[in-house]
Amino acid sequence: MEKIRRTKIVDVLQRTDFASEVNVKGWVRTHRSSKVVDFIALNDGSTINNVQVVVDPTKFDTELLKQITTGACISATGKLVESQGQGQNSEIQCTELELLGGCGSDYPMQKKGQTFEYMRQHAHLRLRTNTFGAVMRIRHNMAIAIHQYFHDHGFYYFHTPIITASDAEGAGEMFQVTTKDLNDLKKDESGKVNYNDDFFGKMTSLTVSGQLEGELGATALGQIYTFGPTFRAENSNTPRHLAEFWMIEPEVAFIDLDDLMDLEEDFIKYCVRWALDNCKDDLAFLNKMIDNTLLERLQGVVSENFVRLDYTEGINILEEAVKAGKKFEFPVSWGMDLASEHERFLVEEHFKKPVIMTHYPKGIKAFYMKLDEDGRTVQGTDVLFPQIGEIIGGSVREENYDKLVAQIEERHIPMKDMWWYLDTRRFGTCPHGGFGLGFERLILFVTGMQNIRDVIPFPRTPKSAEF
Amino acid sequence: MEKIRRTKIVDVLQRTDFASEVNVKGWVRTHRSSKVVDFIALNDGSTINNVQVVVDPTKFDTELLKQITTGACISATGKLVESQGQGQNSEIQCTELELLGGCGSDYPMQKKGQTFEYMRQHAHLRLRTNTFGAVMRIRHNMAIAIHQYFHDHGFYYFHTPIITASDAEGAGEMFQVTTKDLNDLKKDESGKVNYNDDFFGKMTSLTVSGQLEGELGATALGQIYTFGPTFRAENSNTPRHLAEFWMIEPEVAFIDLDDLMDLEEDFIKYCVRWALDNCKDDLAFLNKMIDNTLLERLQGVVSENFVRLDYTEGINILEEAVKAGKKFEFPVSWGMDLASEHERFLVEEHFKKPVIMTHYPKGIKAFYMKLDEDGRTVQGTDVLFPQIGEIIGGSVREENYDKLVAQIEERHIPMKDMWWYLDTRRFGTCPHGGFGLGFERLILFVTGMQNIRDVIPFPRTPKSAEF
Repeated sequence: MEKIRRTKIVDVLQRTDFASEVNVKGWVRTHRSSKVVDFIALNDGSTINNVQVVVDPTKFDTELLKQITTGACISATGKLVESQGQGQNSEIQCTELELLGGCGSDYPMQKKGQTFEYMRQHAHLRLRTNTFGAVMRIRHNMAIAIHQYFHDHGFYYFHTPIITASDAEGAGEMFQVTTKDLNDLKKDESGKVNYNDDFFGKMTSLTVSGQLEGELGATALGQIYTFGPTFRAENSNTPRHLAEFWMIEPEVAFIDLDDLMDLEEDFIKYCVRWALDNCKDDLAFLNKMIDNTLLERLQGVVSENFVRLDYTEGINILEEAVKAGKKFEFPVSWGMDLASEHERFLVEEHFKKPVIMTHYPKGIKAFYMKLDEDGRTVQGTDVLFPQIGEIIGGSVREENYDKLVAQIEERHIPMKDMWWYLDTRRFGTCPHGGFGLGFERLILFVTGMQNIRDVIPFPRTPKSAEF
Repeated sequence: MEKIRRTKIVDVLQRTDFASEVNVKGWVRTHRSSKVVDFIALNDGSTINNVQVVVDPTKFDTELLKQITTGACISATGKLVESQGQGQNSEIQCTELELLGGCGSDYPMQKKGQTFEYMRQHAHLRLRTNTFGAVMRIRHNMAIAIHQYFHDHGFYYFHTPIITASDAEGAGEMFQVTTKDLNDLKKDESGKVNYNDDFFGKMTSLTVSGQLEGELGATALGQIYTFGPTFRAENSNTPRHLAEFWMIEPEVAFIDLDDLMDLEEDFIKYCVRWALDNCKDDLAFLNKMIDNTLLERLQGVVSENFVRLDYTEGINILEEAVKAGKKFEFPVSWGMDLASEHERFLVEEHFKKPVIMTHYPKGIKAFYMKLDEDGRTVQGTDVLFPQIGEIIGGSVREENYDKLVAQIEERHIPMKDMWWYLDTRRFGTCPHGGFGLGFERLILFVTGMQNIRDVIPFPRTPKSAEF
């Protein structure tokens, strides 16, 4: 007899052609036994919901049933029937059972209610739990939403290099990349390591941002976006930092500050709306189990017009708040970089909606941002979100060669390997701008998870590169 | 007067609402002048086609017109009119001209017909040429096709780590990643570098493949795919090797060899069909300028059923060919790894269609491939393409713990950091398989380009990490 083809559980649970024969395969979440009936809750990762496999224990080998424990992998065939219990439409009246892979009682995901830290130590198996299954499916959906948005809007996905010889971005500490034998390093006469015989013939590192190369793409193809890994070698053991994380960096020719803010708002709303439309079951689970204000917060973002706020005006609001008795850890004054507490006050308490802040003092922003006419502020534009703080950081770029070089010199930025970046301003320069979105920040916001190590499959952090 | 909004050139060229006022912005490809009329061919990267801006030189400042040289960036406003010339529907009768960025005669892309090697040295500007614009738009489209295919088929995009402490894959030489100061390295008593104080507390490298971690995803979420950068520190200066390239690695639970071959064939045909449907203008250009058998070859792939061929049978065919007088550089015998000349003979001369080869001798394939019952061959499955040779390499994975460990021991693979991989076979193991596609190989095939350095924006190769 030919075996019937497997149906995914997400599809089985939708079906109403009761009495059909179906086959499902997956991992056992629970197995409850009694003399008259066994219930096996089976999950295959295609949905957060389990299908219930109903087994008459008198019709199966007792030894086989004993091996169907939490974590075991089985194949179950049977008749699709209308579910008697609550929650699901359908369940399976089992006629055939096969054990594909047993699972001993030392299975680390055996017990419910383990801590998140325990889960991180078993990141290779936490993917099989409800919470991490939900997070990973949402993560996938956000990536798809991002590609769909940019493709529909005529942006080209552009792969900027991961290994780089430039360090002008200055966004953070870098990891060195080398093929030199560290146990047998040759030094030159001055006692320094010579990189002539390293793989690339010079010292190289992992990128901290694809923006500068992204500008090369935008000033040729018109509109591009990157979506790739970036790296910071900062020794920060916090719930907000990863040494390896994914960034999305669109860059657009012929854009001004207003258009850039429109793009930021439209883009981020599209992503959140996509989650609300396409991840209903997973979001409902997370809203119930992780953060019961999650759905409300997501709905808030898609329904509100974001506030557009000058930095200077923002400082005024914060100073007024201090006068009225609001206590901040860090003092408020024009010229400072806003701390998370300030951003969250503006977003969560003052405006009660997302804020796009613009026209920051040039001293706290990167060299490539376009100077405002007053010479004091730049056309930076950050999007501030509830809970998260800054979720997007962007700017119009300085397209004027002389002004850009003046900023570079004023900041003593090493430009020896950056001739190619300046060439964009020498040959047919054009107004352009873009922004960066930390992908894991977006996933934190959309899932309600609290620790960034829990929204990426295998987090890289100080002293930890497992899996 | 409020300025009218810019229209992309790809859209302008579609429009037939003649007499409307439009604004375009872009880079000048050519500027031909005469006393009575100037023609400016303008491109903004949105399409390979230029829009023609027709200028009455008596109505504009002569100095302005002089600055509108090849490579300059301009904004042009005017009336959309039906084109008098051939090729395009519409052109622009210019009423307003603005120079956004001039471009001197030292512009490296000034002259046509430069060599590809020259272009590589100016990779930051080659993106503005017809050929590289076409290649990058096709590259974008192939990435989108890949995400669309997997999303539509219920796969989840899964980010496997870039920095890894494991080296069991054995796919090639690795780059070391470190935050140690190479000019001031401490060694321990045995004279070896101690990695306890390196960022991750151990020696780490850049990944050569996400497959092993991908298996963790598939055995939890059912079906995943990776799409990320991978690295090989091989000192290979060839038109086929990059030190940094992008890989796509789907991995599927509950799949057998036949289903895997179906997936490979369906997937790759989908991508090629996407190019034919969505990149018509760029492909027509490449077919004309780069390789005039390109379109025919792409059509061939989507219309043919791929041949499914046992390795052993393939060897027989090659041996017969040798007997019949065919000369190969490398001798043919059972057990050998096929060389490119053998693969291309089978695909281009013998079958004249793509071939999926299976059941390779275990000695030439990786440890994780599922052993056939004869114990001599494994369930590997490579897709061989005309011109390219192997474009996909896949296999069913060995899901049996004892057989897998036996293979690891037989091959003396260091498994000290691989406990997590073996856990998948200890806890609820399941049949699964997957494949890897080198993204740049696909782009080579779809564009007809000859050198892999010309299908990625900024190639990383020995002694070269510019831009």
